Amino acid sequence: MEKISESKPWIKIFSPDLSPPSLGNNTADADRLIKGLKKEIQNEYIKIDFSLVRSIPHVLRKNNYSVNVILFEDQNVWHLIDIFPSEYKKGFFGIAVDLGSSMVVVRLIDLVGKKSIDEISFHNPQIKIGPDILTRIHFAAQKGGLEKLQQIVVEKLNSTIDQLAKKHVIDTRSIVGMTVAGNTTMTHLFMGLDPYNICREPYIPVINKLAPVKSKELGISINSEAPVLLFPNVGSYFGGDLIAGILASGMMNQRETTFLVDVGTNAEVVIGNQDWLMACAGAAGPALEGGVATMGMIAGPGVISSVEINPHTSEFKITAIGGYPPIGICGSGLIDIVAQLFLSGMIDIRGRYVKDKCGTRLMEIDGIKHLTVVPSKDSGTDQALTLSQPDITGLMRSKAAMYTILTTISNTVNIPMKEISRFYIAGTFGSYINPRSAITIGMIPDLPVETYVSLGNTSLEGASMTLLSAQAKDEIFHIRDMITYLELNVNQEFMNLFSAAKFLPHTDISLFPSVKVWS
Amino acid sequence: MEKISESKPWIKIFSPDLSPPSLGNNTADADRLIKGLKKEIQNEYIKIDFSLVRSIPHVLRKNNYSVNVILFEDQNVWHLIDIFPSEYKKGFFGIAVDLGSSMVVVRLIDLVGKKSIDEISFHNPQIKIGPDILTRIHFAAQKGGLEKLQQIVVEKLNSTIDQLAKKHVIDTRSIVGMTVAGNTTMTHLFMGLDPYNICREPYIPVINKLAPVKSKELGISINSEAPVLLFPNVGSYFGGDLIAGILASGMMNQRETTFLVDVGTNAEVVIGNQDWLMACAGAAGPALEGGVATMGMIAGPGVISSVEINPHTSEFKITAIGGYPPIGICGSGLIDIVAQLFLSGMIDIRGRYVKDKCGTRLMEIDGIKHLTVVPSKDSGTDQALTLSQPDITGLMRSKAAMYTILTTISNTVNIPMKEISRFYIAGTFGSYINPRSAITIGMIPDLPVETYVSLGNTSLEGASMTLLSAQAKDEIFHIRDMITYLELNVNQEFMNLFSAAKFLPHTDISLFPSVKVWS
Repeated sequence: MEKISESKPWIKIFSPDLSPPSLGNNTADADRLIKGLKKEIQNEYIKIDFSLVRSIPHVLRKNNYSVNVILFEDQNVWHLIDIFPSEYKKGFFGIAVDLGSSMVVVRLIDLVGKKSIDEISFHNPQIKIGPDILTRIHFAAQKGGLEKLQQIVVEKLNSTIDQLAKKHVIDTRSIVGMTVAGNTTMTHLFMGLDPYNICREPYIPVINKLAPVKSKELGISINSEAPVLLFPNVGSYFGGDLIAGILASGMMNQRETTFLVDVGTNAEVVIGNQDWLMACAGAAGPALEGGVATMGMIAGPGVISSVEINPHTSEFKITAIGGYPPIGICGSGLIDIVAQLFLSGMIDIRGRYVKDKCGTRLMEIDGIKHLTVVPSKDSGTDQALTLSQPDITGLMRSKAAMYTILTTISNTVNIPMKEISRFYIAGTFGSYINPRSAITIGMIPDLPVETYVSLGNTSLEGASMTLLSAQAKDEIFHIRDMITYLELNVNQEFMNLFSAAKFLPHTDISLFPSVKVWS
Repeated sequence: MEKISESKPWIKIFSPDLSPPSLGNNTADADRLIKGLKKEIQNEYIKIDFSLVRSIPHVLRKNNYSVNVILFEDQNVWHLIDIFPSEYKKGFFGIAVDLGSSMVVVRLIDLVGKKSIDEISFHNPQIKIGPDILTRIHFAAQKGGLEKLQQIVVEKLNSTIDQLAKKHVIDTRSIVGMTVAGNTTMTHLFMGLDPYNICREPYIPVINKLAPVKSKELGISINSEAPVLLFPNVGSYFGGDLIAGILASGMMNQRETTFLVDVGTNAEVVIGNQDWLMACAGAAGPALEGGVATMGMIAGPGVISSVEINPHTSEFKITAIGGYPPIGICGSGLIDIVAQLFLSGMIDIRGRYVKDKCGTRLMEIDGIKHLTVVPSKDSGTDQALTLSQPDITGLMRSKAAMYTILTTISNTVNIPMKEISRFYIAGTFGSYINPRSAITIGMIPDLPVETYVSLGNTSLEGASMTLLSAQAKDEIFHIRDMITYLELNVNQEFMNLFSAAKFLPHTDISLFPSVKVWS
C-alpha cells in the first residue's frame, strides 16, 4: 500500500474554519458548515443527507463550531458522514474485507496514518448452509433463505469488527468506511440481492456497478452513515475479488502483457496490459480448496505447505507452517506432494499410485488406495495424514482445467505463453505455491520460475488500496469497463485440450522440457 | 404556468429501449436499465438508490423489459424514483404546496400534461397549538412538541392528498414529486427541524438550502421515493414562500426595477431587477390576516371583499365573494372599508370613529366602539357584522409598518418610489385588494393604480412552476443567492417614519395628492 499513501483519499477528515454565528453573519448552521467545507473542496457539490441535518445545530454549538468533519466523495459529490469534536484524538478507521466463499478476511486500517493495523480471518458462516456457491443460491430461493444468508455473514462480520475495535480500543463510530471485494454471488448475498439469475442462463446479476451504500442499510455495525463500497463485477462468473486482484497486481498500468492467475473452485485468468484486459474463468473443481482433499485445509499453523521426497531413499521431508507438527495439507502442499510423488515415480503419468515404488506407505481403506504422508506418531492430530487416489484425481482435473484455460486464452489473443514475461499468482494459495511443483504437474507453463510472482491475498490488498485512495476507487470501475470477458466455449477442441492436459505433466512432453522424472 | 410547459422537467418519465438479456448480451439488470436510460440522458450520472436495486430484476422481467421509468434530477445526477409497466396509462402527478402558517393550499398537478388539475386549501392544523409562529416555536421546545407539530401538518397534508387522489381516481404511487413553499419556521416544522434558534439572536435556522428529501423520510403518503423539494430560505425572517413569490413575479429577470409586496403577519418587501434583489421584512401585526379582526376571515365564499360608502347617503354597498350573503371580512375588504369610512368622514385621520357621521351604525359593546357593517337581517350568519375601534387601530399599525418598510428600502437603495413602474402584490390577500383603497389609507405609495399588479397566491404559483421545470428549480436557488437581506434597524429614524405613517393617509399629505376626503 506504499504508493497509496501519496494519493488523494475519498474518505477524508476536514477541520473547517467555522466562526460562530452573529447578527452580521447569520448563515444557517448546515449552510455554514457547507460554506466552511467549500473553502477546502472547490468546485464540488457537498451533500448533507436529510437524516443528518437535524443533529447539526446541536453538535456545532456544543463544540463551539470547532469540529472535525468526515466526508466521502462519490461522482464528484461529497457526502457528510459524521461530525466529531476537534479535540477527538482517537483516530479514524476503515475496514477492508476479502469476502471469500470459504474464507473471509477483515482488515482494520488507519485512515489517517494510511496503514493496516490488524486483521482477522474466519470461515464464511454460509458454509454451514452450503459449502459451494450453487447450494447457497438454491437456498436463497427458499422463503427467508436470502435474508438468512445475508444475516449470518453480516453478524459474523459485525462480531469480528467489534473484536478488532475492542482489541485496539477504537470506537466503532470512528470506523467511517468499508470496502468489500467478493465474487458476484458473495456480493449479492452480502447485500441481500437475489442471486437467482446468476446461475441460470443467460446468467444475469442484479447489478454489477453499485454506488457506495450506507452501512446502516446493510446492517453493518460501524458508523451508520459510513459508505460501504462493493467492488463491481464483470458478470456472473467474474467478480469483484478479481477486479481487486487486477488492481493489486497493477497489470492494467503496465506496458508489457502479463497474466494474473487465481485458483480456487474456479480457475480465473486475466491477461492484458495498459491497453486491454481479457478475462476467462472456468470450473477447476474444488481440489485446491481447503477442506476438500481427505486431509485438506486452508493454509494456517500446522498445515503442510511443502513436501520433498528423496528420490533415492523415498524419505519424505515435510514442512508445516509455523514449524508445528503437521495437521493437514493446503492447496500448495498438495501440488508439492503430487509433483514429488510423480518425480520419484510413486505415481505414474496418469496420477495412479505405483505399488512397487510406494512400498508400505500405500494401503487400502474401504477399497480406496491411500498413501501415508505423515504417520500418526509424527502427526499433530495423532492420526496418520493420508492422500487418497481420488484426492490426486481431483487435483489432476483442477490442474488440467487451469492449463487448458491458459492455453485457450493465449490462443485467443494469439500471444504464445512463452512470450509472457510475468505471471502473477493471486490468492492465499498463491503465497505458498512452489512454481517448480506447479510446472512439474503441468498446471502452469514451463517458464523460468522467476516468471511467477506470488501476490498473496490480492482481493484484500485491492480492497485496502481502494479504501484509502480515490484513484484506486476510480480505477476499479475503469478496470471493470476495460475487461473483455472470454466466454469459455466447452466444445470438442476445449475437451481435446483438457484431455491432453490430464497427464503429468502433459501428453505433449515437449511442452515441459524442464520436467525430468528421477527414476 | 404557460411558459413552464416549454422548459425541461427535473421529474421525468422515460421509456428506455431495453432488450431482454441473452448470452450475447448479459449485462446485469440494474446496469441494463442504466445503460438504456443513458441513451436518453447523456453525460449525466444516473443513481439507483440501494433500496430500489433489490426490486429491479422482478419488475423488469415481469414486464418483459418494457417499462416506464420515473427519475428526478438534482445537481446533474438523475435518481430513480420508480418503474411502471409501459402499459400503465393512468398518468403521473405531482403536488405543489403553499405551506402558510394560517392557510395551506395543496395543488394536484399533471406532470405529463403540465397543468393544474385541482386544489384544496385548509387551515394549518398547527393553529390549534399556537395561532402565531412564536407560540409554535416555544411549543416545539417541549418534549415531543416538535414531533407533534410536524405530525399534525403531515397528517392533514396526507389526508388532503388522499382526498385529491380519490376524487381524480389517481393512485398515490403515481404522485412522484412534491414542492413546498413556506416561511422558514413552517419549513422547519414540516421537516421536524428544531426552530429553537430561529427566534433567538442571532436568529440562525438549521438549514437554508436543502437538497430534495424522499417523501418516505418525511412521512408523506405519495410514492415513497418521490423527491420533496423545500424552497430555500434567505434567513430566519425571509423564507421560501417569498422566494416562490419572486419566481412567480419574474422580477429577477426584468430590466426595470420593480417591487414585490406580500402582506401577512409580516410585511415582506422585495425590490430589484435582473442584476440585484434586496429584501426586507418586518412585523406588520396580524390585522390583515383572517380570523383576527372581530369579523375577520380568510377570503372565501360569503366573505366581504369590497365595500363602497355613498358619501351623500352614507349607504353601504357590500360585495361578498360568490354573491353569497356576507359572513365576514377578509384583509382586502378591511382595507376597502377603512378607506371608505375615511373618505366619507366616518373616521378621522387617526382612524377614530366620528360619532356624528356614523349615526345609528355606531354602538358600544363592553365599552368598545363598534360600527355595524352588515345588519343581522342581511348577514349570512344571522348576526350583525361589526368593525371595532381596535380592529381599525390594528389595521393602522399594519399599514404604517408596510409604508415605513417601503420607505426604508426605497431610501436604502436610493430609488424614489415614484420612479417604480410596477408593484407586484403577492398573496391571496393581493388578489382582492383594491389599490385605490390601499393608497387611500396610505398603505402603499400614491402611484397610478395600474402600477399595482395582483399576482394571487404567488407562493403556490412558484411551487407549481418549480415542480414542473428544472429551470425554475435552479432559479429559486439563484434567487436565494441573489438576495441582499436588509436588516430592519428599528432605531429612532424608523420610529419617526412609523409614527408619521400612522395617520390616514399620512401626516405628510403631500405624499398622497390623489386622496381627497369627500366631506
